Amino acid sequence: MADSSATEASTRRRRAAGRSASLLPVNGQPEAAFLGSAPANVRGGRGQAKRDRSLETARSDCHRTQESLLSSASGYNNYRGILNWCVVMLVLSNARLFLENLLRYGILVDPIQVISLFLHDPYSWPALCLVIVENMFILVAVYTERQLSKGSFSERVGFLIHCTNMAIMITFPAAVVLLVPSITPVGGASALSLYTILFLKLYSYKDVNRWCRELSTIKVKKLARSLSYIYYFIFAPTLCYELNFPRSPKIRMAFLIRRLFEMLFFTQLLVALTQQWMVPIIQSSMKPLEDMDLSRMTERLLRLAVPNHLLWLMFFYWFFHSSMNFTAELLRFGDRQFYNDWWNSETVTYFWQNWNIPVHKWCLRHFYKPLLRKGFSKIVSQSAVFLLSAFFHEYLLSVPLRMFRLWAFMGMMAQLPLAWLVGRFLRGNYGNAAVWISLIIGQPFAVLMYVHDYYVLHYRQEAE
Amino acid sequence: MADSSATEASTRRRRAAGRSASLLPVNGQPEAAFLGSAPANVRGGRGQAKRDRSLETARSDCHRTQESLLSSASGYNNYRGILNWCVVMLVLSNARLFLENLLRYGILVDPIQVISLFLHDPYSWPALCLVIVENMFILVAVYTERQLSKGSFSERVGFLIHCTNMAIMITFPAAVVLLVPSITPVGGASALSLYTILFLKLYSYKDVNRWCRELSTIKVKKLARSLSYIYYFIFAPTLCYELNFPRSPKIRMAFLIRRLFEMLFFTQLLVALTQQWMVPIIQSSMKPLEDMDLSRMTERLLRLAVPNHLLWLMFFYWFFHSSMNFTAELLRFGDRQFYNDWWNSETVTYFWQNWNIPVHKWCLRHFYKPLLRKGFSKIVSQSAVFLLSAFFHEYLLSVPLRMFRLWAFMGMMAQLPLAWLVGRFLRGNYGNAAVWISLIIGQPFAVLMYVHDYYVLHYRQEAE
Repeated sequence: MADSSATEASTRRRRAAGRSASLLPVNGQPEAAFLGSAPANVRGGRGQAKRDRSLETARSDCHRTQESLLSSASGYNNYRGILNWCVVMLVLSNARLFLENLLRYGILVDPIQVISLFLHDPYSWPALCLVIVENMFILVAVYTERQLSKGSFSERVGFLIHCTNMAIMITFPAAVVLLVPSITPVGGASALSLYTILFLKLYSYKDVNRWCRELSTIKVKKLARSLSYIYYFIFAPTLCYELNFPRSPKIRMAFLIRRLFEMLFFTQLLVALTQQWMVPIIQSSMKPLEDMDLSRMTERLLRLAVPNHLLWLMFFYWFFHSSMNFTAELLRFGDRQFYNDWWNSETVTYFWQNWNIPVHKWCLRHFYKPLLRKGFSKIVSQSAVFLLSAFFHEYLLSVPLRMFRLWAFMGMMAQLPLAWLVGRFLRGNYGNAAVWISLIIGQPFAVLMYVHDYYVLHYRQEAE
Repeated sequence: MADSSATEASTRRRRAAGRSASLLPVNGQPEAAFLGSAPANVRGGRGQAKRDRSLETARSDCHRTQESLLSSASGYNNYRGILNWCVVMLVLSNARLFLENLLRYGILVDPIQVISLFLHDPYSWPALCLVIVENMFILVAVYTERQLSKGSFSERVGFLIHCTNMAIMITFPAAVVLLVPSITPVGGASALSLYTILFLKLYSYKDVNRWCRELSTIKVKKLARSLSYIYYFIFAPTLCYELNFPRSPKIRMAFLIRRLFEMLFFTQLLVALTQQWMVPIIQSSMKPLEDMDLSRMTERLLRLAVPNHLLWLMFFYWFFHSSMNFTAELLRFGDRQFYNDWWNSETVTYFWQNWNIPVHKWCLRHFYKPLLRKGFSKIVSQSAVFLLSAFFHEYLLSVPLRMFRLWAFMGMMAQLPLAWLVGRFLRGNYGNAAVWISLIIGQPFAVLMYVHDYYVLHYRQEAE
């Protein structure tokens, strides 16, 4: 370790010299830079004595026993440059793919088409109506809490009302999406996601209020009544209700505008890349999938993996960094931990615990720990969490697509054995690589499954 | 900085927890892991008092003011996982390209064909003969030094003999390669490289001996005579002669075998990838190049850039790490600094100073500093170094290909303005990215130029 830091220090010094180097004396000491690797010799002057000294140092300086940086023995580990390399490589190879794609398909980007994903008929906005109806459920929850805090509802009654409220929150929108033909898959999925989020938020709301009553703290009564506060919670980028959220002192305008710009930019980019890059690949992979031509299927899967993964990364940044920070900044919501360093995760478990902190916090606080308290074992509780997550994944995909294939469900449940295998057999960077692979390969696989089934379904219908 | 280290510490702690997590209690504490983000609550038991405490901590613990990791304000900078990501992405996307390539071209790898690159006629080995002749020049150099050390040659005479010796070393092999038709480009290039290396080594040999005479140290006379010592120097992985090289205590067998394995493995890989990946692209890019179809040319250039760059990286590792360490280990040569952390270089200058340390050391010790001592300015001396390097690059390409296009020469000289531009306008990661881009794009550009001209030349000949 000391060794490595020493190496790094020296290399940093050299690089510093290199940085200040240039071909014009204008900036920095080119000599110091150019003679970086033998600074002792810089003094090598014209006089004999001087030359001798410089020569002595030269000889002592020219070679010395040392390991190559890439030898494990050197303890060197500064690969900062690789990050830039990977960015450059990705940009270039994708620039190439983009050009090839353009030469083959021409321009497929069509922003108007996006609207058609949300609306069949511009005069009916079923998804939007669904979203507006959400307020009902909020009001019911608040009303119940008020009665409970006043004591005019018994705990049991309150519990029953909350349960029915939530049960309806899950079933009603699903029924609407399934039965109303004018709802598009995308519109339906958006509406259901919003309902799911609200479900989790209100669940947390009722739990926390109950806990507070158990603690019989005074301020609960006041807060439980304030509608403004619960609406703040509904819009705040968190799923865990609290009586006093940490607030940031002021809205940083520059920050807000940067995030807003990112949001707009990535929205455009996501749409464009999907239309120009994803769709052609998916369409071209339908035939191999139907013929079950394995080698071509694999080729298509891997071809899809890259854009799919990049889009997912962009989506992650767009949603968890740009959008959530934007909302938080707007609401002066203090806690910006929307994700953790999942990119370093060496176990599947660590990934699921850290890529989506709001959901993780909720599961921990309102599902996993209550289960533990009820005396369930850790494995059972953890599996239950994955089961819940699997249910919601399936719920958010199958219902809008109006087909029940359980791919997403199985995909999530497959995380359990995967997590066990990785945690059991792979450590450090191998574990990390395994997590990445499962992400990069797993997703497009599920996507292909659904899209394929969806296409087949619709082709068949057209055929009939 | 403290902030960042703090963040890292905490994330490391969390990751440690995550690592020890698994779905079986067998290894680690799943609870500690799963409750990683709220460890205080682990104690949440069944008793009312306990629940209250756990609840208090829960509320205090659930949210707290903090920045997102990706916000610059967080000072977080641990992206170790990205390295694995980039490896995985490269492997997968190249696996895809490989599969696509196989489906399109079938298997093109043909190890026998490699031999034909070195030999037209298996009964004449002109390149090998050239290499054997090298010994002559070594002997001449040693003989001259002996006479000089005995004083039976005057400095002037010695200098003249050395000069003629070296002049012949550069011209004679070039003449042979140009005139003997049975020498293949690859064979010629290899022979000329070996001559260039020897040229640099003997130049250093004569310089150091002169310096030592100037210092009139005794041991010089002894050493200057020993043939074994100069042959050690000839085979040692350095270009800078010294009177006593640092030696490693013993040959580490495991290390030696690992390097040997790497050498063999990468040789195979380089050949296979060139035949299967580079050649088809180059051939397919001949037509666009002749039609001057710009968009397709760019597409082909970028398509070539990736394999070319990867091959170059492999070559770098194969030559500068595996081979040189192998030789060094075998000769118990202590100084293993064959390259420096050029991958982090933020200026073009730093890259050229650190990717090839043996040459850099030589230029510094025997070319740049002597020029400085002669009173030339730094810019002039530095340009002279690039000029010399450009000359040798051109020499090693044009002569074996038997066509003088100056692409390599211009490529090297272009480094001067490029270095100035980058050093002047780009800093930190932008500089680093610029260096990477110049590497990734610059090389295939030169390659395409040469290959194109070479093909055209030969097609024309066939046409006639």
